[in-house]
Amino acid sequence: MTDPIDFYFDFSSPYAYFAAQKIEEVAMEYGGREVEWHPIMLGVVMKSTQNQPLAHQPLKGEYAVMDWARMARYQNMPWKLPEKFPIASLAPSRAFYWIADQDKIQAKNFAKACFHAYFAEGRDITDVDTVAAIGAAVGCNADDLRQAVADNAIKERLKDETWAAVQAGVIGSPFFIVDGEKFWGSDRIWMIKYWLKRGGW
Amino acid sequence: MTDPIDFYFDFSSPYAYFAAQKIEEVAMEYGGREVEWHPIMLGVVMKSTQNQPLAHQPLKGEYAVMDWARMARYQNMPWKLPEKFPIASLAPSRAFYWIADQDKIQAKNFAKACFHAYFAEGRDITDVDTVAAIGAAVGCNADDLRQAVADNAIKERLKDETWAAVQAGVIGSPFFIVDGEKFWGSDRIWMIKYWLKRGGW
Repeated sequence: MTDPIDFYFDFSSPYAYFAAQKIEEVAMEYGGREVEWHPIMLGVVMKSTQNQPLAHQPLKGEYAVMDWARMARYQNMPWKLPEKFPIASLAPSRAFYWIADQDKIQAKNFAKACFHAYFAEGRDITDVDTVAAIGAAVGCNADDLRQAVADNAIKERLKDETWAAVQAGVIGSPFFIVDGEKFWGSDRIWMIKYWLKRGGW
Repeated sequence: MTDPIDFYFDFSSPYAYFAAQKIEEVAMEYGGREVEWHPIMLGVVMKSTQNQPLAHQPLKGEYAVMDWARMARYQNMPWKLPEKFPIASLAPSRAFYWIADQDKIQAKNFAKACFHAYFAEGRDITDVDTVAAIGAAVGCNADDLRQAVADNAIKERLKDETWAAVQAGVIGSPFFIVDGEKFWGSDRIWMIKYWLKRGGW
């Protein structure tokens, strides 16, 4: 099978930051699959599971903060827990879909740059000007991007994409669907490798 | 450092069943550490984190049921979701400490046999006679074991061990503490390997 790997994530999710660094390489190595990136509003998804952001949960939140730092070290990735965290990542998510409609590769570069800006540099990606600057750095027109993010059609688009994710069974971030099979978490990437190698169960 | 690896688990936890198969081998391969097994009452631990059993959570529960089956397949382990699940695993946990006070190796064999009885054979390990039979199969006296499980001192012991785990920062199952560093989940065993290999961060 050669269907794309669907990769659902929220820009505010540390484990998505870690997964985003790996999934394209895994898809390439095992079967040369395309990866479709789908930013979503995790807050909406969590309503369906009655879940809370990790950082807001007693004890689990403290464990997670430690686990992210260790994960970054073991994956050799820069890491700094942002001052403002978690965030509603509307601006980068909307910008992503606007870019993706023109150029999917550019949109992925933009997404990686947003993750880096937020989790490595501590920049505030809820700010449209910051997001426009990140877009400009990967070759977008900053003014067009700013306008697009304010556009009603793009706002609806992000809602539709989030709703479609919920309908597809997405319950967290990062979340992957491969040939209809669901994988939740950056710590399930080894299973995705198995799946691609074995061609299923 | 050569301190033991502390391995906390509930006999009712599928991810602990998967981790129990691996942790001794990892400890042996990287530095020859001892592993101290600590059965605990996960329900008590979950009160401290306001958590719920996975199987009782909307959507997450369904995902977990699928994930356990896939995990078993990918780890080449027998698996059958028990009819009665999750359970209060008082009988095997109490029996474990009674055996461990006499023979730690026998206690680990007993623990592995309980996991297998519950998750591979679907036997009801809340039943004292079943637990006594499992104990007998690893060399214990079944009558002594039955008596021990009903003993107040052993009942208190399990409470004390659970409370000590909560004090040590245990918030789930399986949970590992290595040189004071916490690792939660069967999917953190790769990190424990890194930790042992690197001798820390």
